[in-house]
Amino acid sequence: MPATTPEPPYYAVIFTTTVTGDTGAYQETALEIEKLAAQQPGYLGIESSRDATEGITVSYWNDEDAIAAWKANVDHAAARERGRAQWYATYELRVARVERAYRWSRSPEGRGNGG
Amino acid sequence: MPATTPEPPYYAVIFTTTVTGDTGAYQETALEIEKLAAQQPGYLGIESSRDATEGITVSYWNDEDAIAAWKANVDHAAARERGRAQWYATYELRVARVERAYRWSRSPEGRGNGG
Repeated sequence: MPATTPEPPYYAVIFTTTVTGDTGAYQETALEIEKLAAQQPGYLGIESSRDATEGITVSYWNDEDAIAAWKANVDHAAARERGRAQWYATYELRVARVERAYRWSRSPEGRGNGG
Repeated sequence: MPATTPEPPYYAVIFTTTVTGDTGAYQETALEIEKLAAQQPGYLGIESSRDATEGITVSYWNDEDAIAAWKANVDHAAARERGRAQWYATYELRVARVERAYRWSRSPEGRGNGG
């Protein structure tokens, strides 16, 4: 589901990956890391999708300080290290400031303005 | 693959969707729209991943004007309309300014700084 985020501005970390064939424990580690992220101050939400070759995870944060603190988290750092040693073939990480957002939903509780 | 984008700043459109059961012609239309996007002025690249329930597409653009022109493209507008009528259960679209980016690659041509 799209993450439920407040009115902009806030920050997004867009993490796009391709993986090697060696993805043992990848899925479990990814879920653990998502749980850890959710405990960080300034965390707003996360969205993640992975198909056969490509994954995109977008996490949302109050501000740059929250992103820096999450980057410094030791368990997160250990998982990144393991990812580089074992899982990832390539990745790109982009830090972006969300300027505006529109939500649309088929159900009546949606804001209904999809632009 | 992570899109090959220039040095920031540039813009990202993060489009997160969940779909209904009725996804006939969804995949073909999505690919057509990605091809159309690539012909737009100011287009920098696109990344897309879809699993069973959730999809994330991130397109990258030079500036807000390029995003506005793409939004106004008539074929794109028709596809959005069809998506709302048929495919999408919910979506959220976020426009964000990419401030910094790091690429890491297992192969020697990578920049090697994954932060």
